[in-house]
Amino acid sequence: MFSINENYLKLQGSYLFSNIASKVRAYQAAHPENEIIRLGIGDVTLPLAPAVIEAMHKAVDEMSVQETFRGYAPDLGYEFLRSAIRDHDYKARGVDIALDEIFISDGAKSDSGNIGDIFSERNRVAICDPVYPVYLDTNVMGGRAGSFDQATGRYSDVIYMPCTEANGFLPDLPEERPDMIYLCFPNNPTGMTIPKEALQRWVDYALQVGAVIIYDAAYEAYIAEPDMPHTIYECDGADRCAIELRSFSKNAGFTGTRLGFTVVPKKLMCGDVSLNSLWARRHGTKFNGAPYVIQRAGEAVYSEAGLAQTAAQVAYYMNNAAMIREGLTSAGYTVYGGVNAPYIWLKTPDGMTSWEFFDYLLENANIVGTPGSGFGPSGEHFFRLTAFGSHENTRAAIERIRKMG
Amino acid sequence: MFSINENYLKLQGSYLFSNIASKVRAYQAAHPENEIIRLGIGDVTLPLAPAVIEAMHKAVDEMSVQETFRGYAPDLGYEFLRSAIRDHDYKARGVDIALDEIFISDGAKSDSGNIGDIFSERNRVAICDPVYPVYLDTNVMGGRAGSFDQATGRYSDVIYMPCTEANGFLPDLPEERPDMIYLCFPNNPTGMTIPKEALQRWVDYALQVGAVIIYDAAYEAYIAEPDMPHTIYECDGADRCAIELRSFSKNAGFTGTRLGFTVVPKKLMCGDVSLNSLWARRHGTKFNGAPYVIQRAGEAVYSEAGLAQTAAQVAYYMNNAAMIREGLTSAGYTVYGGVNAPYIWLKTPDGMTSWEFFDYLLENANIVGTPGSGFGPSGEHFFRLTAFGSHENTRAAIERIRKMG
Repeated sequence: MFSINENYLKLQGSYLFSNIASKVRAYQAAHPENEIIRLGIGDVTLPLAPAVIEAMHKAVDEMSVQETFRGYAPDLGYEFLRSAIRDHDYKARGVDIALDEIFISDGAKSDSGNIGDIFSERNRVAICDPVYPVYLDTNVMGGRAGSFDQATGRYSDVIYMPCTEANGFLPDLPEERPDMIYLCFPNNPTGMTIPKEALQRWVDYALQVGAVIIYDAAYEAYIAEPDMPHTIYECDGADRCAIELRSFSKNAGFTGTRLGFTVVPKKLMCGDVSLNSLWARRHGTKFNGAPYVIQRAGEAVYSEAGLAQTAAQVAYYMNNAAMIREGLTSAGYTVYGGVNAPYIWLKTPDGMTSWEFFDYLLENANIVGTPGSGFGPSGEHFFRLTAFGSHENTRAAIERIRKMG
Repeated sequence: MFSINENYLKLQGSYLFSNIASKVRAYQAAHPENEIIRLGIGDVTLPLAPAVIEAMHKAVDEMSVQETFRGYAPDLGYEFLRSAIRDHDYKARGVDIALDEIFISDGAKSDSGNIGDIFSERNRVAICDPVYPVYLDTNVMGGRAGSFDQATGRYSDVIYMPCTEANGFLPDLPEERPDMIYLCFPNNPTGMTIPKEALQRWVDYALQVGAVIIYDAAYEAYIAEPDMPHTIYECDGADRCAIELRSFSKNAGFTGTRLGFTVVPKKLMCGDVSLNSLWARRHGTKFNGAPYVIQRAGEAVYSEAGLAQTAAQVAYYMNNAAMIREGLTSAGYTVYGGVNAPYIWLKTPDGMTSWEFFDYLLENANIVGTPGSGFGPSGEHFFRLTAFGSHENTRAAIERIRKMG
């Protein structure tokens, strides 16, 4: 009789967004006249940039003619896209990444889940708390989490690194020694990012203890302040200890278009085994490339027009973020994030739990956000709002919160 | 110090297509005047059907306007596509598959690799020999293959099921009891398919021994003969033992467009655990959907125009297959496949090895095919030609082989 991967049975229900949806449905049914504003889910709302649309139409046309039709793509992705990435995301920042260190994929969620494939089940994993749930859940599936303790809300074998007001939402180096460290900056959900010297300490630490860093830089385009690294490879030695995940979802609105990439430097070794060659083997065996049309869309993001148009989209969202930050601050809330990221992490007032504040905001201002406790125990008493709404809705939401007093 | 998934070190080099490429390069360099015809790789050559192109342009336009822009897709894929699949691929064949048993993906290669994720490392795996290499390699990565024996060319823990002239290229029920059985019909590389009553025996066997069948039906559209099942769910009880993988690559030329789906019936249980719910969790955690534009392209394949146009493409390729079959047969070759599949599996003449025949064909007819031994030990003394070339090239290739006499 066949048997299943029993690690899957250790997964906890992912009830966060379904709980939110059912609460919103119930409220809307009871109050059909009230207009609800959703600042909960991290999905973009602006349409794709004109340069991207144009490139996609052109690529679709190419697929319609025998002479320019494209079948299977090269394993690592088309060179036109990898060259654009190398030049704009790395070379322009003084970072030397080779074309065969860049692997085009269908998005950072897939890569952040699949990267575990090439690592041993025995590795100790360190994650931030609160955290993007995919890092944790995929390590539960991969057998690295141990057993779940209902009392603490934590898995026995995972090293949790609290990100709190006390440490400015930057994790401290862990007391237990990890083998794999997941870091995401700018951070989802806290909206905070890490200065270069602080990230250099993580790189130094990883090299010292022999850990690999999985660095998720999906929100890199939202960095506004200087001295904040756009890629971990700005740090010395990162090419010997870090894998970087990148996405087109948030810088160019590709959440429904699906494109990302992962950088695995050839200097990153485990003994005499190159992680670049392991990932190349995984990529070539279990994946068959992102669609040609989508890779051309990604290339267009790096064109002169594409860069300007997508920068304007990021600015639009960051204008929302500033509006939320300032509005909430002047209404007396304690607010974090929203400067280098499209997320605002606010402290619930009067010691409310995250879910109490969710209900309070829904009932009194008809606004939907995300309870911080849904991202981990240290998210309790916090609440996430996103800047991905329209100006009009964002402004209206802030007005409602002010009036709520 | 972190460690890697050591199963990766047990993978054998995937030299088949790179060996072919380097031999072809060397020959072309020595004989620049000779025009080489490639009937080796299973990639399509006809452009996308007009109905598909039209749907993609329309979807791209939708992505350009705020009101019709699409962000994150539903976890299982858009319902418009899943409905079309349910109606055309299942209901029309008298098979009852529910919408939430269909999972849209970026292709059958990804799914056939990723499906192992939800199964235990302890399962015994049975594969055909010769075989599409992804089934074997992903099980090596997943720790189910044991150690490789250079002498036999086989892994210690894998149950190999030879597909030979003696059994008409249909595997016999294995002597050792498997937990997971990979079947692919119509078959790559042999080009043979399985009659319904023979597939029913596999379903009965799987139910009897408690095995799960991973059924790859990527070439279903090429079935021409009656009594050949288009889906394993035409067999009684298959919904309690089988997962089916499907692709748009070969029926609609999506090799560079990337779309597929997997059916996991809700009746398929391991004890009290539903494999449908496990795959749903895997799909929702490590994948973020196929692009909206591509899902619309897939929907268009099922439109009246799309069905007619893609059927004409399949007919074009099958016309090539018939030309190859007949041409080789009249030239004295023993030939299999090519009736219900776009692959022709020919027996090498005069006891040549597969690689000897490769060199012979390259040097004497300037034709590139694929040595059967590259698909497994039982592929030795066979050779694969594909029907995915143009009529003109295919005809010219047959002429050259005849003249070679």
